[in-house]
Amino acid sequence: MKRAVLLLAATVVAGVLPGRQPASADDAASVAYPQNFRAWSHVKSGVIGPQHKNFASLGGIHHVYANPEAMAGYRSRKFPEQSVIVFEWLEWREQDGAFLEGPRRQVDVMVKDSQRFAATGGWGFQRFVKNTSEPAAAPAPQACFACHNQLKKDGLVLSTYRE
Amino acid sequence: MKRAVLLLAATVVAGVLPGRQPASADDAASVAYPQNFRAWSHVKSGVIGPQHKNFASLGGIHHVYANPEAMAGYRSRKFPEQSVIVFEWLEWREQDGAFLEGPRRQVDVMVKDSQRFAATGGWGFQRFVKNTSEPAAAPAPQACFACHNQLKKDGLVLSTYRE
Repeated sequence: MKRAVLLLAATVVAGVLPGRQPASADDAASVAYPQNFRAWSHVKSGVIGPQHKNFASLGGIHHVYANPEAMAGYRSRKFPEQSVIVFEWLEWREQDGAFLEGPRRQVDVMVKDSQRFAATGGWGFQRFVKNTSEPAAAPAPQACFACHNQLKKDGLVLSTYRE
Repeated sequence: MKRAVLLLAATVVAGVLPGRQPASADDAASVAYPQNFRAWSHVKSGVIGPQHKNFASLGGIHHVYANPEAMAGYRSRKFPEQSVIVFEWLEWREQDGAFLEGPRRQVDVMVKDSQRFAATGGWGFQRFVKNTSEPAAAPAPQACFACHNQLKKDGLVLSTYRE
């Protein structure tokens, strides 16, 4: 019993209990699935139509959502730590010339944490598979960063917010 | 001068200064412009494409937003008093097969107040012109109600929310 208590104490000190910050170097640079992001602010939406070169993989309706920290960033273009931006990609379904939201293709997430993600401009990047919280193997964070890094004056974020 | 002050006082008592609650029976059934609705929850979006019969007047991207009361209603399909649902209609702009949000066509609002809007199923209906808070002359609330009243089991609301 005494041994178990000591072990628990050591675990708490190390900060590896479930729900705590990850401890290994690899985990420290992972991006968590953004639970309940649909309740955040809706930044904007767009459509990838049949004539677009990436219609097969991205065709349909997409939405951008932002947590409160990121919303402050959209107004100042200086995104504070813990900003999270979610890009939700949906297929669409046609109905008499109208297009309705279809199944989710994937969710792309960027998280601002200058310390954990110093190697990619202070932002962590992760794609999640379809309508799940399962991380996708690709694209690599460095590939996301290569494009976003061209947007330095906008805080590495492409989208803008209209009031 | 004295006459002007008296007139102002009478106006204040009547409650018709800008920004005050309306006082007449007609005004009591008016729907206020939903300030800051873009910060509410985003329910869903849709697209009216070129093949749609109403493309000329409604073509583009539209969004549905709900205040917290209405969000409770989306989950129970019993919309509480003070529920407000906003239907924002935007034109779109094509860019290499992608379609971006364009200028606002109009904003359609429905407000739940069983007492004030008893004549239209407990919901007030109002369209606002383009990107302004100016009420549109048409459609009449009774015209909106005629269609919405076919959705009794859904609380007179067409849209649904996905988590």
